[in-house]
Amino acid sequence: MLRKIAIIGCGMTKFGKHEDKTITELMLESSLKAIEDACISEKDVEAIYVGNMLAQALNKQSLLANVLADQLGLYNVIVEGVSNGTASGGSAVRSACLAVASNFCDVALVTGVEKMRGSPRDKVTSLLATMNYPIEREQGITLPSLAAMFTRLYMKRYGLKREHLALVTVKNHSNALKNPYAHIRKAVTLEELLSEDNSKNPVVADPLRLYDCCPISDGSASLIICSLEKAKKFVDTPIIVKGFGQGVDKMGVCEREDVTVLKALREASNQAFKMAKITPKEIDVAELHDAFTILEIAESEDAGFFKKGMGYKALEDGITSLDGELPINPSGGLKARGHPVGATGVAQLVELTWQLRGEAGARQVNNNVEKAFSCNLGGFASNVLAFVLTRS
Amino acid sequence: MLRKIAIIGCGMTKFGKHEDKTITELMLESSLKAIEDACISEKDVEAIYVGNMLAQALNKQSLLANVLADQLGLYNVIVEGVSNGTASGGSAVRSACLAVASNFCDVALVTGVEKMRGSPRDKVTSLLATMNYPIEREQGITLPSLAAMFTRLYMKRYGLKREHLALVTVKNHSNALKNPYAHIRKAVTLEELLSEDNSKNPVVADPLRLYDCCPISDGSASLIICSLEKAKKFVDTPIIVKGFGQGVDKMGVCEREDVTVLKALREASNQAFKMAKITPKEIDVAELHDAFTILEIAESEDAGFFKKGMGYKALEDGITSLDGELPINPSGGLKARGHPVGATGVAQLVELTWQLRGEAGARQVNNNVEKAFSCNLGGFASNVLAFVLTRS
Repeated sequence: MLRKIAIIGCGMTKFGKHEDKTITELMLESSLKAIEDACISEKDVEAIYVGNMLAQALNKQSLLANVLADQLGLYNVIVEGVSNGTASGGSAVRSACLAVASNFCDVALVTGVEKMRGSPRDKVTSLLATMNYPIEREQGITLPSLAAMFTRLYMKRYGLKREHLALVTVKNHSNALKNPYAHIRKAVTLEELLSEDNSKNPVVADPLRLYDCCPISDGSASLIICSLEKAKKFVDTPIIVKGFGQGVDKMGVCEREDVTVLKALREASNQAFKMAKITPKEIDVAELHDAFTILEIAESEDAGFFKKGMGYKALEDGITSLDGELPINPSGGLKARGHPVGATGVAQLVELTWQLRGEAGARQVNNNVEKAFSCNLGGFASNVLAFVLTRS
Repeated sequence: MLRKIAIIGCGMTKFGKHEDKTITELMLESSLKAIEDACISEKDVEAIYVGNMLAQALNKQSLLANVLADQLGLYNVIVEGVSNGTASGGSAVRSACLAVASNFCDVALVTGVEKMRGSPRDKVTSLLATMNYPIEREQGITLPSLAAMFTRLYMKRYGLKREHLALVTVKNHSNALKNPYAHIRKAVTLEELLSEDNSKNPVVADPLRLYDCCPISDGSASLIICSLEKAKKFVDTPIIVKGFGQGVDKMGVCEREDVTVLKALREASNQAFKMAKITPKEIDVAELHDAFTILEIAESEDAGFFKKGMGYKALEDGITSLDGELPINPSGGLKARGHPVGATGVAQLVELTWQLRGEAGARQVNNNVEKAFSCNLGGFASNVLAFVLTRS
């Protein structure tokens, strides 16, 4: 049995462009907010986990956890860098949970960070493509092209139309308008997105257009993870990390049994739900990894919320809207809150913590939020981390 | 209390040049050796931790743990990438230990890997300099120049001479001659190293010469970490991970209280010895992080084996030789076994496992080896991991 774990504090920077801040300043900002939010002092932190993918290449900085410890004036702590591509954030949270669960420490700071703006776009794309299978990458395949091929197959098999993809964008942009931390705060309409005039929504990789893809963002998000037994010492409403899991799939998308199934997500969410001893039906709110609009739909199925091929119907019916039965991506998701890759998995859990505490402001989900779910994809879902949080 | 942890298997590739092998093939080779050595099957592996620093930049590959799981045909395992600069290997071992200690799994594979050859030397140097403090890096300071300044101060304060540095090289090259896995297998004499003819041993950063610096290597090393209660199911002589620790120092070497003191190492080794409940005096063999000859000497003091400023005298007296009282770097160390950075922290523990089992062949330490110590430095010792292993 694992020792019980809670989130007692969280914080994040605004996601977007931070030309005037270094990656160190971004980490420090979200970390200090989380420390304050947890009602602890820096000296209570016994371990620092930093999730990041690109700082060595884009910001010329390695040893980020070490840098953050130095900034916080902490010299007898665990410092650990976690790198699992676009799932680095989720991975860092899981590592911190295990450090606490193992009894090695009681209080851990997890920060996910990325500073991607200001670098040439093709450099960023090439670096992200290091997550791909060499045989596929050597054909020039990047994440957007994989997502486009995935979408085509999905459309053919399940009857999904471009309108459905646009519905994800409309919903997530609308949610992000209510989120002061979001990168993109701009309402869009179905008509604009589906206009014949390509200039407003140009093709990235057919059938995916610009508004089907997440932006390139800067940002940092932090959590304070604490053993449940100590949590009540610091805060009245610790949020319980009830379950987590990870699944792995073949690196080569071309080698997968069924390309339209996110097998690693199925495994990850099964593990998380089993550990939490709850079912997908009980979840009140979810943050999914919508790096591309199609992924939100496919993930809503493979996480167990809707039958395979029925996700876009739930979307169409408003079930996943902010006022629906199962709001998905109230934060705006990767699509509109933004996707500083190493920060994303942590930011998802920051949003869910706020939702569970009833602190999400204008985007607070209406129903009485008790149970929340997130998933964070590494590569093109070649590995996935899933989390279940609960209010008690 | 942490759950007790053991090493039940280990393996490594030869360190050196591997032009004909991909980084994936290197990981797979050492991993399969460790799995075989542990008398387990692939299916027993529940978690894969990979320590690496440079694969994204030099080998265009991210998600290494995911890649390794895929190669091993494992899809419901933990996959985690650990990145802590030149201490990525030690960090990966510590993370695996916590995963087992937390009861989350019983058997974890840790692989440290780096493929650095075949890339331009200045590219490698620039990437390694991402571990430095920005203010120092912007002055053009690299790891060799920091080590050179450290050496000058040390010489001035403690009376160390170039002859002592050369003694480290002679000893470690001699040990590596007995290690079939070593990168550099070439005997050198004091006379050659101290020759006035600079062409044989050119200056890198005065007073450090070529033979004071570790080579740039390819290589992979793996361990199987297992809960002690399960270990005996697989092997007769599990090696106990009795203690581990990590210390952190200021990133800026210029900001440290006393530049000649490796404060992070002191903290790390204190923690490791405390956890193991033994003292430095009891250690029979040690693998230290001699990326530069001066570091072996300074570390032998700050780990607690010799008084500050007395390390080079112990070396001179043969105490740290293969047949001495406390053999240091029987493997040849980073200096001669080689330093594929992400692999080093794991390779040190592979060597100590072999020494504790009495399987180190021609370089087997004579005394009855019961207790062993290693340390792995991140950056210029801005964070350090230390381990204590015992035979029972």
